[in-house]
Amino acid sequence: MKKTLQQISHVNPDFFKKAESRLDNLTKPRGSLGRLEEFAGRIVAITEDTMPEPGKKVVFTFAGDHGVAEEGVSAYPKEVTPQMVLNFLNGGAGINVLARHAGADVVVVDMGVDFDFADAVAGHTVPLVIRKVMRGTRNMRKGPAMTREEAEKCINVGIELAAEYAKKGYSLFGTGDMGIANTTPSAAIASILTNRTVSEVTGKGTGIGDEALKNKIKVIEDAIALNKPDPADPVDVLAKVGGTEIGGIAGLIIGAAANRVPVVIDGFISTAGALVAFCIEPKTKDYMFAAHKSVEVGHAAMLEKIGLRPILDLDLRLGEGTGAALAMLMIEGGLKIYREMATFGNAGVATEKKV
Amino acid sequence: MKKTLQQISHVNPDFFKKAESRLDNLTKPRGSLGRLEEFAGRIVAITEDTMPEPGKKVVFTFAGDHGVAEEGVSAYPKEVTPQMVLNFLNGGAGINVLARHAGADVVVVDMGVDFDFADAVAGHTVPLVIRKVMRGTRNMRKGPAMTREEAEKCINVGIELAAEYAKKGYSLFGTGDMGIANTTPSAAIASILTNRTVSEVTGKGTGIGDEALKNKIKVIEDAIALNKPDPADPVDVLAKVGGTEIGGIAGLIIGAAANRVPVVIDGFISTAGALVAFCIEPKTKDYMFAAHKSVEVGHAAMLEKIGLRPILDLDLRLGEGTGAALAMLMIEGGLKIYREMATFGNAGVATEKKV
Repeated sequence: MKKTLQQISHVNPDFFKKAESRLDNLTKPRGSLGRLEEFAGRIVAITEDTMPEPGKKVVFTFAGDHGVAEEGVSAYPKEVTPQMVLNFLNGGAGINVLARHAGADVVVVDMGVDFDFADAVAGHTVPLVIRKVMRGTRNMRKGPAMTREEAEKCINVGIELAAEYAKKGYSLFGTGDMGIANTTPSAAIASILTNRTVSEVTGKGTGIGDEALKNKIKVIEDAIALNKPDPADPVDVLAKVGGTEIGGIAGLIIGAAANRVPVVIDGFISTAGALVAFCIEPKTKDYMFAAHKSVEVGHAAMLEKIGLRPILDLDLRLGEGTGAALAMLMIEGGLKIYREMATFGNAGVATEKKV
Repeated sequence: MKKTLQQISHVNPDFFKKAESRLDNLTKPRGSLGRLEEFAGRIVAITEDTMPEPGKKVVFTFAGDHGVAEEGVSAYPKEVTPQMVLNFLNGGAGINVLARHAGADVVVVDMGVDFDFADAVAGHTVPLVIRKVMRGTRNMRKGPAMTREEAEKCINVGIELAAEYAKKGYSLFGTGDMGIANTTPSAAIASILTNRTVSEVTGKGTGIGDEALKNKIKVIEDAIALNKPDPADPVDVLAKVGGTEIGGIAGLIIGAAANRVPVVIDGFISTAGALVAFCIEPKTKDYMFAAHKSVEVGHAAMLEKIGLRPILDLDLRLGEGTGAALAMLMIEGGLKIYREMATFGNAGVATEKKV
C-alpha cells in the first residue's frame, strides 16, 4: 500500500488547458456541452493523452458479509449476499443489465462473503474473483469488525485488482458493492469521517421501517462508542466499523489513481470506500468521478467532503455499481464529443462574434 | 391536425400497475432503481405492451431561420444556421456524435432555413428532409413572425414525420433544433404560455453579454406588445412570436402522442415546442420525457408548467437534440432493467422481510 500511495500525484493542470483549447474550437458555442466537456478534460488530464481513446470498461462489484446484520439493521436476510453473488454470475442482476447496456464488463470480487463459492465459480461468463479476507466481518456492536491487518488486506486486494486490470488495458473502472447490512458500516464511516452525527447520515437502506431505522442508528452509535475509531486514521475507521467490500473499493480507487485510470464511484457504500481512500490520500480525488446522487441520506455529506459533484440524479439506491455503469455512458459521451466533433475550421462554420 | 388531435388519449393507468408488478418481482429492493423503473413503466403504458422491445431510435433536428436575428440577439451570424445544417449532414456536429453514441439515427428537417439546400442533399449518410415552410420567419419586432397558416403548416410537417417514422418502426423519438436566434422566440413563448415576465425567462442563449441580454429582453417585450399573441391560443402564439422549427417540434410531439410513440424533449427550444403542443392538447404530456435541465433560464418554468421532471442535469445548452440523445440511453437502460433482470423466483434469491 505504501509504495502504491507514493505513485499517486495530482493531475497536471496543463492538460486541462490543452483539452480546453480543442473543446473551444469544436462547432458549438464555448462551454455549451457543460459537464461533458468537463469529463473530457478530466480524462485528458488523468491519462496525460491529448487524444484518449474510449477503451475497455469494467465495474468491480465487491461483496462481503457483515456481522452487524444480526442486529436487525436490514430488510433482507444475510443469505441474500451469496444468492445475489450467484445472480451476478448468472447475469441476472441490475448491474449485469446496466453494464451490458454501457458496454462494460463486470468482475465480482468475493472479499468476505460468508459462503464457500468454490463449486460455483466454473461455467459462468461473469468472473468471480475469490479474495476472501474473512467469512463476514465481526459484529461491530460487540467489538471491531476487522483487525487492522484484515482491513489492510482488503485495501491491498483492491490495489492489486486495479494494477491487474490497468495492465489488461481497461481504461475506465467503476466500483460497486453487494453485502446485506452494508449501509450500516457505510453510515458509520460517513459519520466519523465527515464529522456528522449518526442520525444525520443514516438512512433506510434497502427499505426498513421507522422503528428499524431508530435501532440502526442506535447500533451504529453503540459501535462507535465501543470501538472508538480514530477519525484521523481512516484505516482504523475501516477496520473497526467498516467492511471488507468497502476496503476493496477504497483499494481499487487508490490503485486506479496510482495507475492513472479514471474510476467511477457508485452510490452510498462505494462513496464510503472513496472517502476512506480520500482520507488516506487526498490526491486520489483527481481520479474519481461521482456516478450519481443516491437516495440514501448521508451520501451528499460524503460527496461534499471529498468535493465531488454527482453526474446523475435518478433516485437510485440499489448499489452493485448500477449508477457507475450508467454514468460511464455520460463520461464516454464527453470523450466522444472531444474526439469526434468537427472544428469550426474543418466544417466551415463561422465563429462567435462579440455581442 | 384536428384529426390527429382526436387520436390522442391518456395512457391507460392499468399498464402502470402491470409494469409495477413485474418490477417489484425483480431481484432488487422494491423501487431501488428509482427513475429507471418509472421510465420502464411509462414505456409499457405508452405502448400498451407489457414486454416492449428496445427498438430503433431517431432524433429529429428541426432547423429554421429567424427574422429577429437582425435585432442583434445572438452571438452568431445567421449564416451559421445553414452551415450547421451542412455540418449535421457531414456527421460532425454534437448531435451526430451523441446520437451515434446512443445508437440513434439523426434526421435533419429544413423547416425554414434561409438557404437553398437543393444541391447539398445528395451523398450524405444523415438525411435532410426539406419541408421549407418559408425562408426564415419575419422579424417579430416588426410584425408577426408567421401567419397562422404558416404556423399550422409547420405543425403539420411534424405530425407527418411522426406518422412516417412510427410506420417505419421507430419506437423512440427525440426532438432537437438548430436556428440562430431561436432562444428569442422560445423565451417569448415561455413568457406568454407560463405567464411570467420576459426577463424571468430570457437568458444568454449561446453566450451573449449583459448589454445584449438587455436588448434581447427589450426586443421580446416589443414583439409581444406589438403582436399581442393570445395566451389562450397556442397556435396564435407560435405564429406571432415563434419559429418554424419550434412548430415542427410541437407537431412531432402531437404526432408521437397520436401514434403512441414516446418522445424525448431536448432543452430550451424543444421545450418551447413541447409547451405549444401541451397547450394545444394536454394529453400529449403522457408521451413526453424531459431530457435534461438546461442552463438557459426559463427552461425550468416551462417544464414546471407541463409537469415534467428532467432526466439529466449536465449543464448543457447546445440544443440540436444532444440532451435527448443522452437521455435516450437512460430510458433504454430502464427498459432493459424491466426486460432482462431475473426475478426473485428464477434467481433463487430470498425476498424482503418486514422490519
